[in-house]
Amino acid sequence: MTDNIIYSINFEFTQNPTISVMDRGFLYGDSIYEVVRSYDTPHPFLLHHHYQRLVSSAKFLDFELPFDHKRLQSHVRDCFEKINKPNLYCRMIVTHGIDEHFDLSLPKVTKPVTVIIARPAKAIPEQMYTQGMHVSLVSVLRNSVRALNPRIKSGNYLNNILALKEAHGKGAQDALMLNEHGNLTEATTSNVFIVKNKTIYTPCLDCGILEGVTRGFLIDVLEKEKMPLKITKISKEELFNADEVFLSSTLKEIMPITKIDEHKVNDGQVGLITKDLMKRFEQHRKRWLETSC
Amino acid sequence: MTDNIIYSINFEFTQNPTISVMDRGFLYGDSIYEVVRSYDTPHPFLLHHHYQRLVSSAKFLDFELPFDHKRLQSHVRDCFEKINKPNLYCRMIVTHGIDEHFDLSLPKVTKPVTVIIARPAKAIPEQMYTQGMHVSLVSVLRNSVRALNPRIKSGNYLNNILALKEAHGKGAQDALMLNEHGNLTEATTSNVFIVKNKTIYTPCLDCGILEGVTRGFLIDVLEKEKMPLKITKISKEELFNADEVFLSSTLKEIMPITKIDEHKVNDGQVGLITKDLMKRFEQHRKRWLETSC
Repeated sequence: MTDNIIYSINFEFTQNPTISVMDRGFLYGDSIYEVVRSYDTPHPFLLHHHYQRLVSSAKFLDFELPFDHKRLQSHVRDCFEKINKPNLYCRMIVTHGIDEHFDLSLPKVTKPVTVIIARPAKAIPEQMYTQGMHVSLVSVLRNSVRALNPRIKSGNYLNNILALKEAHGKGAQDALMLNEHGNLTEATTSNVFIVKNKTIYTPCLDCGILEGVTRGFLIDVLEKEKMPLKITKISKEELFNADEVFLSSTLKEIMPITKIDEHKVNDGQVGLITKDLMKRFEQHRKRWLETSC
Repeated sequence: MTDNIIYSINFEFTQNPTISVMDRGFLYGDSIYEVVRSYDTPHPFLLHHHYQRLVSSAKFLDFELPFDHKRLQSHVRDCFEKINKPNLYCRMIVTHGIDEHFDLSLPKVTKPVTVIIARPAKAIPEQMYTQGMHVSLVSVLRNSVRALNPRIKSGNYLNNILALKEAHGKGAQDALMLNEHGNLTEATTSNVFIVKNKTIYTPCLDCGILEGVTRGFLIDVLEKEKMPLKITKISKEELFNADEVFLSSTLKEIMPITKIDEHKVNDGQVGLITKDLMKRFEQHRKRWLETSC
């Protein structure tokens, strides 16, 4: 196990981070979670947005979160200060707890369990940003909005894991998934954007995607910078006809895609608009941290 | 917590049944499971079929099961003998273990963790068998075969939990789910059968269902008894036009359905063929136990 990992259960630090096998988070994946990161300081980037999404995921599953934003922020900062390194990662999981009635249905009285795992963020090789990622448009469909809405960021992650398995089997680094109507949704832990004729497009929530915090931050950046954006359905054909393609996520920020299966995007080069956005994202991220810490 | 519960982790009995928060079964629902029960003796009913399905679920997720059928059978018997009561329940969970690389993709080298939970089976009120269950045909679709195949009996159970939540909200006891093509799939923990003009129908595997062990046992019974059976697609209309409807599961065995939302099946009475099958199922189950123990 890597050094410098901090665990807490219900906000108490522990060196023995375990959970009951009767916890619904273990039995059914009946848990919700978020991942935040820090840059240089122990201040978690955009934590408030992650907290709001946790509240939203919780509502879908009849959770009452056992903490407010302030308590979570203070605790995550504590974790980051204890590790005392730049670029930290924190996973915050809230489970539905133990149901003493052994009942499948969502419990009426819950004793949620909060699990925090903090550690240094894994470094992403610089080359991936300069050369772009190779992804595969896989046959595994994203979970349908009508079956298990991808807006719920939950412990049910096998759909994404199966998509990633198929992508890895084809030699790609990540998977892009379509929905049951043939429209683009997202990658296994990232949202996706395409550029066509200098306009930026990203799938709408109705396509069946997670409402990514980095996606939201980037949409704000595009609006502030008055860059043309359309949030809409994107077909497979539009994906392959795109001038540029990139992903957004908390850990990857903006990650160019230069190959989709055997198809080279922009002749296999990172596009100019993607490069420009990577710079602008960094500027806005630094500004946010200067004004919010 | 109820008395008479036995836990084991990796086949060692424990009074402190916990699992690491870094286990993939907890983080992603990357686990597979089975439920078996006993009748009167400590012999688990149809365990070999459940073991075979565990092997099948494992293959979808690149697991190597850390035990063979013989070892599992001997251990489940030990659990049942320790509790020493009739009608026991045993949940057998195998997780993908801890991935020290913190990687989402299925680990190449796995250290699976086996969790066993054994306890008395919850009694199902006799009235449910004589009056039938009230179910709801919910708007939540069953996970698509192309997204997360319901044949994998995994720790990703939120789809079923959301369906059950909707059914309970409508005052029903369980949910029936359609697939994305509008065909009947299954209930939240049971397979479904309908009867029309004395022929018995049940959805085919391609509809996106779990290949239920009790469903399989019942199909064998129908073949032995030369009763007409069709394994096929069943539309919503065919469901509502059925003469009789019933569920099959390890814990419920054969459970009549007499109401689907506001629609009364067979005037709200348990049908003759369902009653007949309940008797025949019991005879065959007893015969199996006599010859297999």
